Amino acid sequence: MNSSMIRLILGNVLKVEAILMLLPCLIAVIYREPVGIYYLGVAFLCLLLGLLMTHRKPKNLVFYLKEGCIATSLSWIFLSFFGALPFWLSGEIPSLTDALFETISGFTTTGASILADVEALSHTALFWRSFTHWIGGMGVLVFLMAIIPLSGGSNINLMRAESPGPSVGKLVPKMKYTARILYFIYFAMTLLELFLLIAGGMPVFDALATSMGTAGTGGFGIRADSMMSYSPYLQWVVTIFMILFGVNFNAYYFMIFHNFKKAFAMEEVRYYLGIIAAAIAIVFFETLSLYGTAFETLTHASFQVASIITTTGFSTVDFNIWSQASKTVLVLLMFIGACAGSTGGGIKVSRFVILVKTLGKEMTSYIHPKSIKKIKCEGKPVEHEVVRSINVYFITFMIVFSASVLAISFEEKDLVTNFTAVAATINNIGPGLELVGPTQNFGLFHPVSKFVLMFDMLAGRLELFPLLILFHPAVWKDLFTQKVTARKR
Amino acid sequence: MNSSMIRLILGNVLKVEAILMLLPCLIAVIYREPVGIYYLGVAFLCLLLGLLMTHRKPKNLVFYLKEGCIATSLSWIFLSFFGALPFWLSGEIPSLTDALFETISGFTTTGASILADVEALSHTALFWRSFTHWIGGMGVLVFLMAIIPLSGGSNINLMRAESPGPSVGKLVPKMKYTARILYFIYFAMTLLELFLLIAGGMPVFDALATSMGTAGTGGFGIRADSMMSYSPYLQWVVTIFMILFGVNFNAYYFMIFHNFKKAFAMEEVRYYLGIIAAAIAIVFFETLSLYGTAFETLTHASFQVASIITTTGFSTVDFNIWSQASKTVLVLLMFIGACAGSTGGGIKVSRFVILVKTLGKEMTSYIHPKSIKKIKCEGKPVEHEVVRSINVYFITFMIVFSASVLAISFEEKDLVTNFTAVAATINNIGPGLELVGPTQNFGLFHPVSKFVLMFDMLAGRLELFPLLILFHPAVWKDLFTQKVTARKR
Repeated sequence: MNSSMIRLILGNVLKVEAILMLLPCLIAVIYREPVGIYYLGVAFLCLLLGLLMTHRKPKNLVFYLKEGCIATSLSWIFLSFFGALPFWLSGEIPSLTDALFETISGFTTTGASILADVEALSHTALFWRSFTHWIGGMGVLVFLMAIIPLSGGSNINLMRAESPGPSVGKLVPKMKYTARILYFIYFAMTLLELFLLIAGGMPVFDALATSMGTAGTGGFGIRADSMMSYSPYLQWVVTIFMILFGVNFNAYYFMIFHNFKKAFAMEEVRYYLGIIAAAIAIVFFETLSLYGTAFETLTHASFQVASIITTTGFSTVDFNIWSQASKTVLVLLMFIGACAGSTGGGIKVSRFVILVKTLGKEMTSYIHPKSIKKIKCEGKPVEHEVVRSINVYFITFMIVFSASVLAISFEEKDLVTNFTAVAATINNIGPGLELVGPTQNFGLFHPVSKFVLMFDMLAGRLELFPLLILFHPAVWKDLFTQKVTARKR
Repeated sequence: MNSSMIRLILGNVLKVEAILMLLPCLIAVIYREPVGIYYLGVAFLCLLLGLLMTHRKPKNLVFYLKEGCIATSLSWIFLSFFGALPFWLSGEIPSLTDALFETISGFTTTGASILADVEALSHTALFWRSFTHWIGGMGVLVFLMAIIPLSGGSNINLMRAESPGPSVGKLVPKMKYTARILYFIYFAMTLLELFLLIAGGMPVFDALATSMGTAGTGGFGIRADSMMSYSPYLQWVVTIFMILFGVNFNAYYFMIFHNFKKAFAMEEVRYYLGIIAAAIAIVFFETLSLYGTAFETLTHASFQVASIITTTGFSTVDFNIWSQASKTVLVLLMFIGACAGSTGGGIKVSRFVILVKTLGKEMTSYIHPKSIKKIKCEGKPVEHEVVRSINVYFITFMIVFSASVLAISFEEKDLVTNFTAVAATINNIGPGLELVGPTQNFGLFHPVSKFVLMFDMLAGRLELFPLLILFHPAVWKDLFTQKVTARKR
């Protein structure tokens, strides 16, 4: 295994984090908050470590999927650990476990918080929290690719490990440009939302945090009541942008190059919008009696449905008190998630489309055993290998899910809390039901359960396997034997 | 499609049901219950219809998997409908929907009851209820095969549609003899349990009903408190027999022919026993404080674990009051289920063994992308097609499961009730948690939900596809066009 390349990537990630952490320092200067000194200190620490780690260039630049996965998951663990330090050092989150939970929740765009009183935080900390969403949404390695040249095959292996969805398409032949285009779209859309929110009268700081949280489909609110106290206009802007950030970014790429027909023909996007419409319809009729007018009901129904399916996790109402059917709809949406190639989490619409088509094909095979039609998606036949890996993904997801629910069940919280706590973290959503509902927080869990949920957040964001193989004995054996061989030389 | 052959099979099934219904008539005579007249009447009706349907022999004896599936699922629907008539006609279960629910629950060996007071039923009705478990456990078509000769390929297609588990192995070259061997083992083991129960002081009628319920892994109790009031000896006998009936019957076949080595080497059976041991250990430590002594705790832990994993559904305590971890263990066991080729339900241990191995293989493929080892099970490599069909089965199961939970959620019962009600029916267990816990019943559901749960029971027993293709438009189109073509001739 090429561990020098992994070291190089980790070093670069730390250098990037050092630069990113200067932004909260700027916020500290603006709001004259002394807490900024911790961010500056950790930024220097990251820079120092990063320089040390990238000092010696590796001789061998060959880099396979295995190294890509390990580099990616270690990058995310490093990012989260150093990202958590300022919260802990400044004493704003006194427990290191909690600080780590909050940061992992931020970078993985989950938005599950352990804070009972979010409004007590400094502006600097609030900004950093929301900024982690923005960084995590598109992915820090994608960012790295956009700015640092890496040798040939390495990029696609990193991108494959970090990007959400069953398959990574290169938009343009060079991975570097694909990464730049993605970040350009991402940045432009965030700015547009920021502008629309400020135009609607939202304070600038709130608008900044909200648009970063929406863009990354994160969900950290900066108010204790999330989005409840904002005007319907602002709620609708957020609703629409949540839905937009849950769309496969390929659609925007097509639009930029005036290929509107191709953008609107995308099967996944149409199913995604269809599911949203159906879910809003059910929730609308189920909650009509709760709210005054049809408009208010529609606002809340749309907001919550968009927030859950895109795995953002903002809320305008406490859906814990909704009818059982509405809550069941939300729980199902948690698992479906957003489109592949978006910033959202969950199992992804395209995977479900292919799973349902697999079911249809199986039924046909009972009736016409000799038919050998391939499943089609986006007009093209889906390769057997893709179907197989989606099947395996789904099964692995369910096994990790069940094991996590069992692991946290020893705390004696009710089954709905445990079930939705795991669903809300592994799908990178944020709030669940009952004790982890929108008006509650994750602070009540035991540290052991918190680590289980942190694992789930990372596993969900990195789509399971890059994180899981870290626990495969062969990986450690490999690292160890390499060192031994090196010493013998 | 060869609908004449389907008609012939359905006719034969009705004839068999007519004969089976004479047994409750005998019970009615013994206990001098006038209610027996309804059973006799329905038996005549079945015989008459059966004779009518089998009068004309089909010209074409060719019979494919499609016809096998349709014949199987229609047989089970016919069986249940006519089996429900005596309950309804006699007024012992006044609603036809409820009578149908109880009968489907019986034949599918679920054991979920709509009765609030089971002890009010006549002996005749109680016997018929438990007898449906015994018939459904091994399968009525397997029974048919054992007694009626069908042409070549037909048998395997019927057996494949009715038997639990991923693959149907012929024990001996002739299907007829395989079916006879299976029924012989089944009958002998039931008799042995009956004998041991009577020897332990259980009243003969109770012992008869209990052993039939255990053999089919059904779970209808004849007392309101299920097995709570029986002695520890009797509870242990039932525990051991539940576990035995959840074992792949191939193991017993090997034992009969003195191939003990092969029987004990069965991978699935060893995993099955391992899971049971682990589950009992967790539940034991979690419930130790609830019961007086270690022995009593062990008795209850073993009984409940065995009852749930084998999908029987008897209970000696109300596990609704157990700790959350214990309940979570039981919920997970609900999905795992018993061995393939046993009388139990659930997803089956062998499927899970292969699913987990698939996960391991996928992780290896990240580390050694060029390795192309096949998964092995029972010492033999598992064919790609088997892995694929298990994947599809699991996915279809989850889709049917989620759709059912959503469908019954409109009733506004809590999520745990809905979730476990579907889990308990689709896995053919019986009791769930909360409102459908061991001391409760399914009578509180709306008729629409009852039909959803009846569908789930049948879908679970017939392993999804045979029932699902009944809803495929091509099947009905096929039947229709055939008739038109026939008329044109």
